[in-house]
Amino acid sequence: MNPYPDFTAIDGLMSSSQDIGLGVVPLKIEGDRILLVDQRALPDEFIYFDATNLENMCFAIDAMVVRGAPAIGIAAAFGLASEARRLASQGLTAVGIVEGLLVAKGELDKTRPTAVNLFWATNKVYSAARGLLVSEPMIGSDKLVMHLELLSKTLLNETITANRDLSNFGKNLLEMGSNVLTHCNAGSLATGGWGTALGVIRSAYFAGLKPHVYVDETRPRLQGSKLTIWELTQDGIPCTLICDALAGYLMSLKKIDLVIVGADRIALNGDTANKVGTYSLAVLAQAHSIPFYVAAPLSTVDGASMTGYSIQIETRSDQEIIKIGDVRLAPGDVTALNLAFDVTPAHLITAIITESGVLYPNYEESIAQALRSTESAA
Amino acid sequence: MNPYPDFTAIDGLMSSSQDIGLGVVPLKIEGDRILLVDQRALPDEFIYFDATNLENMCFAIDAMVVRGAPAIGIAAAFGLASEARRLASQGLTAVGIVEGLLVAKGELDKTRPTAVNLFWATNKVYSAARGLLVSEPMIGSDKLVMHLELLSKTLLNETITANRDLSNFGKNLLEMGSNVLTHCNAGSLATGGWGTALGVIRSAYFAGLKPHVYVDETRPRLQGSKLTIWELTQDGIPCTLICDALAGYLMSLKKIDLVIVGADRIALNGDTANKVGTYSLAVLAQAHSIPFYVAAPLSTVDGASMTGYSIQIETRSDQEIIKIGDVRLAPGDVTALNLAFDVTPAHLITAIITESGVLYPNYEESIAQALRSTESAA
Repeated sequence: MNPYPDFTAIDGLMSSSQDIGLGVVPLKIEGDRILLVDQRALPDEFIYFDATNLENMCFAIDAMVVRGAPAIGIAAAFGLASEARRLASQGLTAVGIVEGLLVAKGELDKTRPTAVNLFWATNKVYSAARGLLVSEPMIGSDKLVMHLELLSKTLLNETITANRDLSNFGKNLLEMGSNVLTHCNAGSLATGGWGTALGVIRSAYFAGLKPHVYVDETRPRLQGSKLTIWELTQDGIPCTLICDALAGYLMSLKKIDLVIVGADRIALNGDTANKVGTYSLAVLAQAHSIPFYVAAPLSTVDGASMTGYSIQIETRSDQEIIKIGDVRLAPGDVTALNLAFDVTPAHLITAIITESGVLYPNYEESIAQALRSTESAA
Repeated sequence: MNPYPDFTAIDGLMSSSQDIGLGVVPLKIEGDRILLVDQRALPDEFIYFDATNLENMCFAIDAMVVRGAPAIGIAAAFGLASEARRLASQGLTAVGIVEGLLVAKGELDKTRPTAVNLFWATNKVYSAARGLLVSEPMIGSDKLVMHLELLSKTLLNETITANRDLSNFGKNLLEMGSNVLTHCNAGSLATGGWGTALGVIRSAYFAGLKPHVYVDETRPRLQGSKLTIWELTQDGIPCTLICDALAGYLMSLKKIDLVIVGADRIALNGDTANKVGTYSLAVLAQAHSIPFYVAAPLSTVDGASMTGYSIQIETRSDQEIIKIGDVRLAPGDVTALNLAFDVTPAHLITAIITESGVLYPNYEESIAQALRSTESAA
């Protein structure tokens, strides 16, 4: 299997990292078409899902064809640009397109409530469209579309660059031969390219630090078994799959040196929403005096959430717990509670690894400072 | 579906509890045949597995046709009695039968290393056979066989009585409407009848305390989804299935009032081996100031284990993690670590619920006292 099957699909991006690839970029653009790696089919099949039209893109995000907070954001940005192109082809003016984009943004924003990168990205694209209309009221629809497509590609490029940068900072938190525990998938598939939690591990590996990774299978959707193990195996990084419930005991046996996870949303005080199970790992890590790190680009910080209390936690279908494929696991009349995420309070997080550097408590201050430095650089 | 399909199979046992049944007794004796409820087939099918011959009984324990520490012990006792009958039918004398039983005990003891009830039961039966030979050297083989079959039925009866008694003590630890979290299956299927952790819940329910049960699905074998939910549903006890990784977050949301689990082996200091994930729950419960209870008959105490360090933890096939039925969950070349149990140190256990009463720390003293009271009663 080609380790980087679609690296070349992102034209000209990140040429500086071609020496060791980006991991599997979760989407490719072919002319007008947006093709998403269908993450539901992995690791059995590597196939693409056509998410060019808005309805398909909304389905793809909701059904987790594409998943992972940064990847969802990028996909939604391309989805809005594609919708702009469709509206233009129907003869709408720039004004009409911007009106249509507001509706489309509403549809996209409804798909998944927890990952803030979705709203971050749709806001970026919609605001850019509105901004263009203000600065250039007579802008042609083709020019507007071109701008939005370029913006989407730029967001992807910037996200990958942020991942590379945060991974470069984060790798210094590992020692030679560290045993790292990770949860869910925060690899290139989830993040646009390279990865966040898995990006840090990848950077440590390519720096010669010989990490070994324990991977939580991550019920119910098994992103650990299906995606993280697959990504690590592609790179030849040694890894061991475990059930989620074994992680704590491995800590007590001193088999885990550090925990690194991604994030779906980070509040201004450092409270972090991530895949369900993350909270338990953080409590267990603290009980065993093991460092617990969150790795995420600053686009994951939600300026509207002062703390984790205001983060909406998605409840997904109970069928994700009751069935795997066509195999039924529990009696037909069972009630199951499928919270997809949880919130880890800041005091359990040793550090947050970002493209601006490794942030430590007090997070109110360190996050605010990192956000300011990014804004002043932009 | 008949809620207690095989209660009547255990002739004349526990008639005092017929008013509300025993739950599903995991085996039935039909003439010379030992029929085990095939727990692999639940909840889809209720079928029996013929474990009359020794090879089938060893397979049944190893492959988890029968599972749960007390149930494994009972099944192994009947297995030895059945082997004695087979040897007698081949014309062996009592001396020859006892020699054969030592070999058979060796085979049974090899099947699963962690549940001490297995060794407890095979020792009981083998020692009884040897004792009969010493006290009555000319004993006929038929009489020996009859004694061992009666002993096996007595062990089952005593185990169920112990479960009823410990449940009766344990139910007082619940308040009206308590939300109980349990892990794996410590119901009637696992324990011979009525249940230990689930027995406590059952007794609380029938005492009108209206418990609600959160059930960990319990990867990899999903005893929570497949067995515990099924047993609770049969009794009409309200329950909610969750992924193992959600338990900690539910504690932080104050949805869990207490945790009750079973045990596969309890050391003399109270350290307890149980299904993998139990240790994490105990750490999480302590971090949230939630009581954490172990419910088990005193046959689960291992007099040879001073602490949990000496308890052997079974490693099972990695295929249990990699596949569910015929559905493959991870890439083919993955390495998975499948520790089936973990050890919870005594200091994380609020109390141990036994048929002699609810034991509190210091466990060295309270367990020793309980064992003495049982011995003096016997």
